[in-house]
Formats: sequence, C-alpha cells, structure tokens
Amino acid sequence: MSGKIYQAKHLVKYYECDTTKKMTLPMLVNIMVHTSGEQSHLLGVSDEVVNERGLSWIILQYEMKFNRMPEFAEEITITTQAISYNKLFCYREFKVYGADGKECATAMTTFALIDTEKRKMSRIPDDLVEPYEAPFDKKLVRTPKPEKVGEDASSTEYRVRFLDIDRNQHVNNSKYFEWAIDALEYDFLIQYEFDAVNIKFEKEVHYGNMISSEFSRTELEDGKVLTAHRIRTDETVNCELSVVWRKR
Amino acid sequence: MSGKIYQAKHLVKYYECDTTKKMTLPMLVNIMVHTSGEQSHLLGVSDEVVNERGLSWIILQYEMKFNRMPEFAEEITITTQAISYNKLFCYREFKVYGADGKECATAMTTFALIDTEKRKMSRIPDDLVEPYEAPFDKKLVRTPKPEKVGEDASSTEYRVRFLDIDRNQHVNNSKYFEWAIDALEYDFLIQYEFDAVNIKFEKEVHYGNMISSEFSRTELEDGKVLTAHRIRTDETVNCELSVVWRKR
Repeated sequence: MSGKIYQAKHLVKYYECDTTKKMTLPMLVNIMVHTSGEQSHLLGVSDEVVNERGLSWIILQYEMKFNRMPEFAEEITITTQAISYNKLFCYREFKVYGADGKECATAMTTFALIDTEKRKMSRIPDDLVEPYEAPFDKKLVRTPKPEKVGEDASSTEYRVRFLDIDRNQHVNNSKYFEWAIDALEYDFLIQYEFDAVNIKFEKEVHYGNMISSEFSRTELEDGKVLTAHRIRTDETVNCELSVVWRKR
Repeated sequence: MSGKIYQAKHLVKYYECDTTKKMTLPMLVNIMVHTSGEQSHLLGVSDEVVNERGLSWIILQYEMKFNRMPEFAEEITITTQAISYNKLFCYREFKVYGADGKECATAMTTFALIDTEKRKMSRIPDDLVEPYEAPFDKKLVRTPKPEKVGEDASSTEYRVRFLDIDRNQHVNNSKYFEWAIDALEYDFLIQYEFDAVNIKFEKEVHYGNMISSEFSRTELEDGKVLTAHRIRTDETVNCELSVVWRKR
C-alpha cells in the first residue's frame, strides 16, 4: 500500500533540451520536483504551509533509471507518489512517461524536513504527511550509496551564481547535476546517454562558493561506462553522485 | 497593420524564479521565444521547416520594458506578433501579462535568417514569413543601441558549458543575460529590479570559450541605475547590453 498518485503533463521546450535534442537531466529533475510541489499544494500542505511551521523540505537522494530521455516537443506525463515515511525520512517515487505511454525514467527520492532556523533535521509531524496517504513504516530504508570517485580524478572549478539560487533560497538541486555533467568531455556527452544516476546530497553550497566538480571513469561490461563524481568546497564534500552511461 | 497575434499561457515554476521569488530574465526570454516557436509551428513554418531550407532564425536584438516581473506560481499570458519585415530583418513584439491581466513586460525583437552552411545572413524568402501576415516594409527600422561600457569596467570570467547549448546547437540566447546579470553584486540584485533592457548580439560564442562579462555602472535621476555590459571573448565583442534598474 502506498500513497495517492498525482499526475501532470509537460511539453518539452527547446530550452529544456541539450544539443542532442533530448531533455537535460537538470530540467527533468526540476519538472519532477515541480510536480510533487503541485501535489502538495492541492493537498493543502504546500511549501508555504510547511515554511510557516519553521520547516522546509530538502531532498537527500535521487536514484534514477532511464529507458530514454524525453525529446524536444514531446508531451510527457510525470507521476509522483509518496511511498512511505518514518520519523525522519519520506520516500517518494517519480515516473516519467513519453508521448507513446511508455516509461522513460523513474526516480526514487528521499526527502527530509529541516528546521529553517537551526538548519537541522526535524522529526516529521504526522499532519504534514498524512494528506499524501502513504503508510508510516518505522524501519529506515537502506538506499545504495553512489560509487566513490577514484584516485585518478579530474577536477573542474565552478562558482555558485546568483541564478543558481531558486525561490527556496537554496542552490537549486539541479545545479549539482549540471556541475557534474559539465565536467565531462563534449564528445563523451554526445556519444553516451544516462542508464542510471544515483546522487546523494551531503552539505549545501552557497552563493559565491567556488566548488570543485571531480570525477573518475571506469569501463563496465556491455560497453557501459561508470562515472563517479564528487562536488567539493575546499575539504567539505557537498555531494556525491555516480552515473552509469550507455552508448546512444 | 501588423501580423497575427498568437497567445499562450504559462505557469511560473519555482525553478524559473530567483531568490526574490520573481521570474528570472533568462527564463522569461526562453518562454517568449518558445511562444513564437509555437506560433511558427502552428502556421506550418516551424524551425524544422526553416532548417530543411538550410536556414535558421537568429535573434539580433531585444528591447525590453518592465512594469514588474512575474511571480512564483503566477499564471502569465504571453502574446507574440510579427510587426513587419524587410529583405533582411523581421520585427516581432512580445507582451507578457500577469494573472491580473495587466502588462508585466514588453519586448521588441529583431530576427534575421542565416544560411546554416555559410553562417551568413540570408535574404528572407517571402513564403517563410507570409503565414505571419505582417506587412513588408523595405525601410530598415533604426533600433537604439545599448549604452557603451565605461572605462572603469569590472570583469568576471565564465566558461561556456555543455548545457548552455540548446537544441538549436547554439548557445542559448538567455545565457548572455545570465552572464551579464551574474557579474553584478548580490546586494544590488536583490535591491533593484529591471526597468528596461536593451541587448544586441554581435557574434556567437561557442562551447568551451572563456568569456569576459564586463560592466560599468552609472547613477541616473530618480534613483535609477544604468549598467552597461559587454560580453567578450579575447578581443571580440560578442554582445552588448544595457539595463536600467529601479529600486524594488
């Protein structure tokens, strides 16, 4: 038994696509999070309601699998569903369907609440999650960690920009994906596509920070490639992610 | 007499807003261009049709005026209309209306066609613009130039990223706005809002280019501020823009 399913449609626009004419991962993630925001709003537990309680949702992890990326001008359908929650975490699933009705991508995500004053995780109040109708299950879900960056990592520097910060006054989650992807070579990015992505957020970056986007690469079976990424500010690890790529 | 008006609605999403909870200029520009793309598609002269002729639309200039920026979760209406064309240029107007029905912003834009092989401007074939029903007027429109950057310019460096390139295989127009805006200080950006923007594109930047975003600042009457910007790669000026700001 899981929670209510909410569903929305989205037309993929030219500026949401990269040079391969496919939707970018940052934009897909933005649309997914927007869709869950719409569900929350309709259920009377919008971000504003949560913020008034001195709390704010953060996303700790995305585990994503891809059949294919949506294309320019395609009308996709995004579904979202709260799966379960415990004292500290909510688990939420997203599915993205193409215009052909087939599954393009899925994401399992881990949400948590932080106390906006103390910047610490907060116990989840029942009344903020009951509207989603997902069951309480006190057992924590063990989610797989992203692969670790190897010794031979390359590094590229990025500065956190004004427009990286969204209306939640945080650096938008999707920017971490952008820093990771951009560190890879152009030729690689047009030859390979996402098979799976696992991203875990450790510590927020802030406006003006210089971040290092490091990665290492491993060849897998079947011509697949694994890239392991780490986003760092000085000695602090802000985010780790790993991507399995397959030939386009 | 001008051309057919096309109109579309758009819901402003959280990731389209900056930390002030207002829509960002790059996102507003993206939505405007998307809207004119929809009109072209409906009139049978989509980008694909133009591309098959070995041609591609480029935007040379935007002159924009702002009453206010759209807000998070606001449903805005965008109208677009071809105003007139001559041998080399098409003039197109955009208007953005808020949920209250009042005008938020207007933009007058200059489009041109380039031969995608030769990368040179091409004479506009009548059959590609007739569907818009705008009149031919052989006289070139004299558009005001952006203000020039002063001697005391500050400069910030940006590298052109993989995701800056959109499905048209060009650096997305909106990125030039981002480089210009980001060079300004955080405190300035949260205290001032757009009154008017004039941007003129001179020469494309490309993937991997290091660009300098320069600006100088002048105090105007009524507490308004003028910032003049120049986007450069080495000695080449790629884009000039000027912004009049007013206190929020």
